[in-house]
Amino acid sequence: MTNPDVKQHLIPSIEELPRSECLNLLATASIGRVGLLVDGRPEILPVNYALDGDTILFRTAEGTALNQASMTVVAFEVDQIHPETQSGWSVLLQGLAYDIGDTIDATSERLRQLSLNTWAPGGRQRWFQVRPDKITGRRIRSLPDSL
Amino acid sequence: MTNPDVKQHLIPSIEELPRSECLNLLATASIGRVGLLVDGRPEILPVNYALDGDTILFRTAEGTALNQASMTVVAFEVDQIHPETQSGWSVLLQGLAYDIGDTIDATSERLRQLSLNTWAPGGRQRWFQVRPDKITGRRIRSLPDSL
Repeated sequence: MTNPDVKQHLIPSIEELPRSECLNLLATASIGRVGLLVDGRPEILPVNYALDGDTILFRTAEGTALNQASMTVVAFEVDQIHPETQSGWSVLLQGLAYDIGDTIDATSERLRQLSLNTWAPGGRQRWFQVRPDKITGRRIRSLPDSL
Repeated sequence: MTNPDVKQHLIPSIEELPRSECLNLLATASIGRVGLLVDGRPEILPVNYALDGDTILFRTAEGTALNQASMTVVAFEVDQIHPETQSGWSVLLQGLAYDIGDTIDATSERLRQLSLNTWAPGGRQRWFQVRPDKITGRRIRSLPDSL
């Protein structure tokens, strides 16, 4: 029997996700966020991305802030969070970002053939890949307090 | 008359948002992402936040990676993106993060009274504020190509 005068609280729990599940979750989304240093300050920039194995691909135009990712370690984050149920997941990947826009090796040419739709208008000729040296993920679930 | 053989494309446009609209959008959400350096590498960590004027407040536990934000410039990003319509907005704020967990000035005491629900279990006694020196935002809209 529920007493309507007692406000129900949600009790959250956090679970660390194994790498395999992080990769499965990355495959379900198409928008992520690149964390990088731009002129020495942290920035977070949303991008469309594609996944190839554990490698992240994103594109940008010439001259954008995202070009400063080149040959630096970046963060790449994807999440799906539901405020109404206080639940969701987030995956964080870190690794060196390589500009593969001009590279002529077979792998780069194959990656540039991947379907990678970008919404932002204008040319998006700079292709970047991020090869992760670390992938972590968490799932948060909240259940009503039984009191 | 629509020719079903011609695939409809969405044509996107991007609009830069004024600071006042960025602040209005920040007031509509409760989850953001902190971009910071942890042991010299960029990370992106989702947090619950509260807004006071143009100041962002978030909380964390003792000893977490987020504590490395203290007295550094961080990025704080909030977005709401709808993949199905290729539309949405994002706001990026940058500024120095201060640990106000122990400060006894009147402003810090007032800020620590703000309603700032955190989902993550465990104590969240470290309060941080980020006072922005830069706020930028963008809205993306996509309309069907009439061809």
